[in-house]
Amino acid sequence: MEIASPKGFLYSVAKAEIRYTNRYDIALIYSKKVAAVAGVFTTNQIKAAPVKICMKRIKNNTAQAIVLNSGNANACTGKKGVEDALKITELIAEKLNIHKEYILPLSTGVIGVPMPMDRILPALNILVENLGKATPFDVAQAIMTTDKFPKITYRQIEIQNRVSTITGICKGAGMISPNLATMLCVILTDAKINVDLMKKMLQNSIQDSFNSITVDGDMSTNDTVIMLANGESLIEIERGDSSYKKFNEALNELCNELAHLIVKDAEGATKFIKISVKNAKNSSDAKKVAKAVANSLLVKTALYGEDPNWGRVVAAVGYSGVPVKEEKIELYINGVCLFDKGVPTMKEEELRESIKNKEIEILINLNVGKAEKTIFTSDLSEEYVRINSAYRT
Amino acid sequence: MEIASPKGFLYSVAKAEIRYTNRYDIALIYSKKVAAVAGVFTTNQIKAAPVKICMKRIKNNTAQAIVLNSGNANACTGKKGVEDALKITELIAEKLNIHKEYILPLSTGVIGVPMPMDRILPALNILVENLGKATPFDVAQAIMTTDKFPKITYRQIEIQNRVSTITGICKGAGMISPNLATMLCVILTDAKINVDLMKKMLQNSIQDSFNSITVDGDMSTNDTVIMLANGESLIEIERGDSSYKKFNEALNELCNELAHLIVKDAEGATKFIKISVKNAKNSSDAKKVAKAVANSLLVKTALYGEDPNWGRVVAAVGYSGVPVKEEKIELYINGVCLFDKGVPTMKEEELRESIKNKEIEILINLNVGKAEKTIFTSDLSEEYVRINSAYRT
Repeated sequence: MEIASPKGFLYSVAKAEIRYTNRYDIALIYSKKVAAVAGVFTTNQIKAAPVKICMKRIKNNTAQAIVLNSGNANACTGKKGVEDALKITELIAEKLNIHKEYILPLSTGVIGVPMPMDRILPALNILVENLGKATPFDVAQAIMTTDKFPKITYRQIEIQNRVSTITGICKGAGMISPNLATMLCVILTDAKINVDLMKKMLQNSIQDSFNSITVDGDMSTNDTVIMLANGESLIEIERGDSSYKKFNEALNELCNELAHLIVKDAEGATKFIKISVKNAKNSSDAKKVAKAVANSLLVKTALYGEDPNWGRVVAAVGYSGVPVKEEKIELYINGVCLFDKGVPTMKEEELRESIKNKEIEILINLNVGKAEKTIFTSDLSEEYVRINSAYRT
Repeated sequence: MEIASPKGFLYSVAKAEIRYTNRYDIALIYSKKVAAVAGVFTTNQIKAAPVKICMKRIKNNTAQAIVLNSGNANACTGKKGVEDALKITELIAEKLNIHKEYILPLSTGVIGVPMPMDRILPALNILVENLGKATPFDVAQAIMTTDKFPKITYRQIEIQNRVSTITGICKGAGMISPNLATMLCVILTDAKINVDLMKKMLQNSIQDSFNSITVDGDMSTNDTVIMLANGESLIEIERGDSSYKKFNEALNELCNELAHLIVKDAEGATKFIKISVKNAKNSSDAKKVAKAVANSLLVKTALYGEDPNWGRVVAAVGYSGVPVKEEKIELYINGVCLFDKGVPTMKEEELRESIKNKEIEILINLNVGKAEKTIFTSDLSEEYVRINSAYRT
């Protein structure tokens, strides 16, 4: 797939051998014009050094470059971690001759190991020298950790014969839980958007995409979504306008697509599972129930084993912490009703074929209200354990 | 190990072929005298039929028999499930010629499948006929599901030349989370105890034992602890008395031993992990942090891989929902400080040998208060996934 880039953005990648040898592991994204910036970050209280810096800097509402690396998360690295991340952005600012406050650092990889600055600093020269020689796809590859494939997509909208592009680059494969994940995501657009409007749009888009996926319930120290809009397409997005609707839809689609790619690349996953909770009292309840089911190891392993062991789903609903009534609950898997208002239907046989599908749909009807929520997750295989027990050693 | 039985209790087992063939899968425990009874049950809102019945019946404060089965949990089975469990206890009451309200049903096994009453009813005759022919150990074997070994122990206390025995029989291997698990536990004693005192002692004993273990964070529909005291030893336990102290200690020890056996038999587990949280603001915070670490798949898989990837522990502390300060946290694994008030110590090398131990100790010092809590858990192996993806099929 050819990935379009929004106008006015340049890319470069380099090999800093941060953790991996002989692969690109550091990348730079640069906007020729200063851009409006919005960001969403992990709610984990232990935040990586680059996250702390980004959270401060996006308060300027303006940014111009993003420096990303894989192999080291620069998390749990104390004061030195912050100094290292600051130094990286300072050196790039000097070389690019832009304000250091306009440079955002993003890191992913192992936690608790100081950044190998002796190898990173020389790579920064290469990044600046080579700006324009790489593509967004190269950046997506450079930020992979346990990802099996790079995650990138784009959307284009046309308004009055002009085209504006939104390109999304992200990484993430394990440790993905609602409220972000070990995921980095950069969304670049050449549309012109007021920064407050962009913040709202990004927050909304994230709710049903990155905040609605879970792989293992673990939440990372580094999760970051950064959006830059540099206005180079000359298309202006204004609230209430038709441009707004088009752009918003495109942004939602883009975020959903990237979030689903993360679930599909979940470590060792063999299935993509959609869990919908309907008729809950409120959406927070609906989310809690969906999340309890999505994070149940017994549900995940049963689906991996292609066993329609729906009792485990009902058990997870029961311990979700949400008030439920057994005699009101209906449970469907792939459209087959297995539990009908508290009574088992004994229809598991009807699932024999469809339980083997790559995509599984679980629908839980609580029948106590009108709220609903959908969460996307993966199954759990021996491969997940293999990958995560050997990630460092 | 020879298991002593408290005086005045009789046991029998039978083969009802509920799920397994050619093994004992149903058991009866009978006290010659009516006994004082106390019970603790799952907090899962979806409760199995036998749990609903036990919860009502122990309000009588008196019981005389317990009928237990493996292979079928009789959960999510609607009204018929309750009718089936009631019928089982009625038939036994008739044959034993005791009050049906004094019979407690306990079930464990697969969820959502009606009890095979055509095979269970004939087995009940055998149970009553054979009373006295089985041992507590036989009962422990009959209630095993994915357990690799029967779980049983006893304690004896001596008071004024008389001996009183407490015998504990339990099952549980997966789906074990604080606030009980797929675990059944029966505690029998020939001491004489006031029922209110016994309830308090049991509640206390459970806090640091069965409510302090977690395997996969899933909480079952069937968890039950039942304690019977029939007074046959003529030793009376009275509050404030030295007998109270002795008995209480013995009961705590017994519950701890059984709880640890469950963790050691966790499906596919290779390690027994003790997670202590110290100097938390309050004990609820301490428990939340310990539980977040204990249930983190990334922590569990890292320990399985014998990788001292302590950053995953700190990340779990950060997302536990408890307010923490990175710059105050200290983390020790097997006595080695790895994170010292927000700074990595780079001492992982010192763990190279001890990380291979079968027992691992993680100590998290939050340094914000004085409360503490210890949770016991297991690691997560490919074997867990294999067992749980194939449990039914």
